[in-house]
Amino acid sequence: MALKQTAIQTEARPANTSTLPVDGRCRVVIEGITPQVDGGRFPAKRTAGEVVRVEADIFTDGHDSISAVLRYRHEDMHGWQESPMQPLVNDRWAGEFTVPQLGRYRFTIHAWVDHWETWRHDLAKRIDANTDTPLDYLIGANLMEEAAARAAGEDADWLRKQAHSLRVEQPIEGRRAIAIDPALDEAVTRYPDRRFATEAERELVIVVDPVRAAFGAWYEMFPRSTSVQPGRHGTFADCGARLPYVAEMGFDVVYLPPIHPIGTAFRKGKNNSVNAEPGDTGSPWAIGAAEGGHKAIYSELGAFDDFRRFMDRAAELGLDVALDIAFQVSPDHPYVKEHEEWFRKRPDGSIQYAENPPKKYQDIYPFDFETPDWLELWQELKSVFVFWLEHGVRIFRVDNPHTKSFAFWEWCITELKRDFPDVLFLSEAFTRPKVMYRLAKLGFSQSYTYFPWRNTKYELTSYLTETSQPPVREFFRASQWPNTPDILTAFLQTGNRAAFMIRFLLAATLGANYGIYGPAFELLESRPVRPGSEEYLDSEKYQIRHWDLDRPDSLRHLIATVNQIRHDNDALQNDWSLAFHPVSNDQLLCFSKHSHDGSNLVVVVINLDPNSTQAGMVDLPLDRFAIDEDRPYVAHDLLTGAAYTWSGRRNYVELNPFRTVAHILQLQPHLRAESNLDYFLKP
Amino acid sequence: MALKQTAIQTEARPANTSTLPVDGRCRVVIEGITPQVDGGRFPAKRTAGEVVRVEADIFTDGHDSISAVLRYRHEDMHGWQESPMQPLVNDRWAGEFTVPQLGRYRFTIHAWVDHWETWRHDLAKRIDANTDTPLDYLIGANLMEEAAARAAGEDADWLRKQAHSLRVEQPIEGRRAIAIDPALDEAVTRYPDRRFATEAERELVIVVDPVRAAFGAWYEMFPRSTSVQPGRHGTFADCGARLPYVAEMGFDVVYLPPIHPIGTAFRKGKNNSVNAEPGDTGSPWAIGAAEGGHKAIYSELGAFDDFRRFMDRAAELGLDVALDIAFQVSPDHPYVKEHEEWFRKRPDGSIQYAENPPKKYQDIYPFDFETPDWLELWQELKSVFVFWLEHGVRIFRVDNPHTKSFAFWEWCITELKRDFPDVLFLSEAFTRPKVMYRLAKLGFSQSYTYFPWRNTKYELTSYLTETSQPPVREFFRASQWPNTPDILTAFLQTGNRAAFMIRFLLAATLGANYGIYGPAFELLESRPVRPGSEEYLDSEKYQIRHWDLDRPDSLRHLIATVNQIRHDNDALQNDWSLAFHPVSNDQLLCFSKHSHDGSNLVVVVINLDPNSTQAGMVDLPLDRFAIDEDRPYVAHDLLTGAAYTWSGRRNYVELNPFRTVAHILQLQPHLRAESNLDYFLKP
Repeated sequence: MALKQTAIQTEARPANTSTLPVDGRCRVVIEGITPQVDGGRFPAKRTAGEVVRVEADIFTDGHDSISAVLRYRHEDMHGWQESPMQPLVNDRWAGEFTVPQLGRYRFTIHAWVDHWETWRHDLAKRIDANTDTPLDYLIGANLMEEAAARAAGEDADWLRKQAHSLRVEQPIEGRRAIAIDPALDEAVTRYPDRRFATEAERELVIVVDPVRAAFGAWYEMFPRSTSVQPGRHGTFADCGARLPYVAEMGFDVVYLPPIHPIGTAFRKGKNNSVNAEPGDTGSPWAIGAAEGGHKAIYSELGAFDDFRRFMDRAAELGLDVALDIAFQVSPDHPYVKEHEEWFRKRPDGSIQYAENPPKKYQDIYPFDFETPDWLELWQELKSVFVFWLEHGVRIFRVDNPHTKSFAFWEWCITELKRDFPDVLFLSEAFTRPKVMYRLAKLGFSQSYTYFPWRNTKYELTSYLTETSQPPVREFFRASQWPNTPDILTAFLQTGNRAAFMIRFLLAATLGANYGIYGPAFELLESRPVRPGSEEYLDSEKYQIRHWDLDRPDSLRHLIATVNQIRHDNDALQNDWSLAFHPVSNDQLLCFSKHSHDGSNLVVVVINLDPNSTQAGMVDLPLDRFAIDEDRPYVAHDLLTGAAYTWSGRRNYVELNPFRTVAHILQLQPHLRAESNLDYFLKP
Repeated sequence: MALKQTAIQTEARPANTSTLPVDGRCRVVIEGITPQVDGGRFPAKRTAGEVVRVEADIFTDGHDSISAVLRYRHEDMHGWQESPMQPLVNDRWAGEFTVPQLGRYRFTIHAWVDHWETWRHDLAKRIDANTDTPLDYLIGANLMEEAAARAAGEDADWLRKQAHSLRVEQPIEGRRAIAIDPALDEAVTRYPDRRFATEAERELVIVVDPVRAAFGAWYEMFPRSTSVQPGRHGTFADCGARLPYVAEMGFDVVYLPPIHPIGTAFRKGKNNSVNAEPGDTGSPWAIGAAEGGHKAIYSELGAFDDFRRFMDRAAELGLDVALDIAFQVSPDHPYVKEHEEWFRKRPDGSIQYAENPPKKYQDIYPFDFETPDWLELWQELKSVFVFWLEHGVRIFRVDNPHTKSFAFWEWCITELKRDFPDVLFLSEAFTRPKVMYRLAKLGFSQSYTYFPWRNTKYELTSYLTETSQPPVREFFRASQWPNTPDILTAFLQTGNRAAFMIRFLLAATLGANYGIYGPAFELLESRPVRPGSEEYLDSEKYQIRHWDLDRPDSLRHLIATVNQIRHDNDALQNDWSLAFHPVSNDQLLCFSKHSHDGSNLVVVVINLDPNSTQAGMVDLPLDRFAIDEDRPYVAHDLLTGAAYTWSGRRNYVELNPFRTVAHILQLQPHLRAESNLDYFLKP
């Protein structure tokens, strides 16, 4: 870059440095509000029914007391609701509101100098010091009359009566009795003097998603491989027949790669070979053919009726369906003829295919987000989502969103959520950290993460801490995947069954949201296309596979057990409570999660080493768990049913990967010992 | 607080959730800009001549290259200047601009997808892979012709010529030579295609203060006690005669408590007794009498001519003068009669005096910042500053700013700085941390800190790290005071001379800004008014004192030495470079500071224990100091002139508080050893 410092004579904005307020009598300051993403530029995320805890630094000059309320409303409502805020320490205040309704809530804070509270507070000190005078009570009477003027009806009358009684000549004890009556405080506080209230400088937004945005187990499967007959292309009927298998494993979401017609131009063959052979089905991500594009169904899979039956079957089984939306086209896609202007042209008039020099992807045309017809393009892309929303789909896994413009996603997702507030988007952006976070801020409900490549205790602890704590957790919901059709990690390429178990248990317990690409995962598929590659050999991306689901080494029963544990334990349905605990052996990872109210607690210990037995002392914060350090307790293993008697903070754990790689523990008082009987407890 | 959740039917702002941009083709994202205070709500602070380093996360969708420029201007200028930004790692970019001029600068960032750079980058990879085709060069030729259309004159002609030459039929080598010519890149880059540039979402502001805002040693003295004749009230002539004593100690600023007429109503006597006796002079903070208020001079001190001579004398000696501005009045202040409406009335018609029940301060009336005439009050208070600014004063120590409204300060300081950009304000707010920080954000140039009460290594390290690192250092400039007329700490009440030395050395080396209240400090005044109090016995706040400046135990020579070291070493003129280093003994504190360019480095080791010799191993990051770990070097003590030969990271230090409490070290290569000769270095 050879730009020099140059003076550019553009018109600068006026130097608006006037800081004269409309009313200088608003003395309270509100700052440091949480939750807040990038100074309020983006909404924070919650799920329906959650309690939103709002905190802020609130203070005024001098020594006056202040009061503060949280103001909030769903964007569909016009009136604000209010709930009081309470002081914590160090000028920090907190308040709460619940968000039962999907969509967008706004909140702000009003805070004001509370002269009544100042007076009460000072009077108490005067009474203590026996220095209260009739004049002090007259000040109170004035404040009460001001409150009466703001009140109406009986309250007003009663306040005036009380004020008057403070003015009557009487012994100081009589005035004291009137002034310190809690009923008086309550009555005045109902009519606060908010003329000089300060409002927070920016209204903040909370986007409320369905609970499924924060908790769910996904199962990805290729419809093409669902036929029970080897070599035959799977259909939606086959997919439907496969659903009980998925439901029995306890999954919540079944996710299908693109179901649209597949292009034939430059179609890729098996194992991504550049020349397809007759019968090769091509990549489902090479979308579009003469028969249609993103709003069509590949004829081999069936018709819309078949799709509807598949959706119905999934609903019967309690499974949500996620579709893959990949905004790119094959050269055969109808868009290419109908909307040439949406693609970048080369000087020879041909359309620029996807390319990462020197690699060429001639079977894929990307959209040109700098087309002069960008708005038309945006609207068409949005209409693809609307089309499938109208066919009952509510979850979309978005392919490579980071290669489409950020502004498009913010607009598209915001618009879609306005009409379909129950829609969810999973961002498939395996790219640089700030790009992944930006996409989450723009509106994606969930995001793939670097989890596939985080294997050691240090890697898992540091990364999961980052994503489960503020500020990241306010906008980013991790979805942990041990594998995907694009990612067969080195850890899994060992083919070690324990390695698969470890990665599965990590994903399913560290992540309230997780997923696997099956049946490759539960059937321990571990062969890469070539050494050093993370691509699967004979990948379903390019060919039909036939899977023997009943193989005895399948992980399906372990998966079913763990998904059941996830459903039974609220603790595993959030990431926010994740806390790592020390173990004396770096090959053992220990962490806990708890439900929002703390009533459900789960402690997980996982052996990260698939080859050897590992043992160590785990160190648990029993005080935070409300477990008595001085008495034995039971660590009940939800995976195996075993029960271990533990005592104190530090306890021994040993995990042999050839038997089990993890404990999922519930801690319980040792109920059946005689030491629990009353006469033992109270000597 | 008994507020219930209630529905309040106020008019809510419209739910403006449309995120459709003006032009969707602006694909670059700019976020995470630093420096930035509270999302741009407040300016960041710098001093004249500094280089402002701006960083931001800048990225776009996909794989295109991007370019970014920093745009900046002084608010008095209309044209923006630009300097290029450079990528660091992890999508972070950096740029710089200098701020030679006092006042307010604005800056923002423009960033855009750089198709030329993308093309060049991709072409290089194609050439490497030998896959470049004539078509690739035609794309480049088009981009060059677009640049030519933005250019003019010779550049345009030359670019068109080069573009044409790429279109001519020729061997690929010829095209390559033209395309990779650096002169071509430079020419195209001079005319970037910024049609779809993204601008940062908010212009940010830098307030540029005089260098004195960031570096200065203050000396506070009571004019009343400057007479050489015991018992006589000091005058400005006496103050002037005292100045050489202050200048010889190397101070930069002499600060006087209020110089205004002192009220007689409820005047406080010696040691803050409620009844003044005849001859008692009262507190200078009880401002205002029949002879005048905040714009008058106490007659005992002299007249305006005397004040002018004092100012002139200070200027001759290179001393800046700071005045104390305390916005409160005695009952005798002219404001009380002329502007009754600026004060709070009690029901009996009397004016409410200052009070913190059960304590009463009948000699002080606070202003009522909720007066309906708030704007008139604000303007009058601002005019007090303007009055003294017009009398040549440029530094104000503001008394208790946290008991005046925050909005007033933001307005007042911003207004004053517009007309007097060289003015400085020191905030005397010994109060809660968020209040102190808010005042700094609102515009105070410097702030007193909790330093007086930070004694241990842990306390000093944690607090000074907080204030010298972002985000705090962007808006808060600490001024470290070991004592003030209100603060005689327990540490100093021991009367131990070493304790005074320790506190002085800590203040003067940890703090680029620091001050002492003298002569009480250098004369080791240590008697509290009563046990458990931090008030001085026989405080100058209430009476005239006579000081024996020539006492042999005075710290004046140590102070002079240290102030000279501060002036000689840029390293001690900033707080930003402060870094603490491990010592094997918690009674020894070790830290370093360096100049902005790194050429000046100072390492300080202080014994925090005034009673015992302490020794330990200090551990220095020699790699950061560019000192060879494998060769001996000299630690030269600027305080004593001693030179220690050290080697490696860890070296022994011993400090006997009865001899010296600290080392102020410069590290130098061991120049005079034969091992420094060339033939030793290159075996």
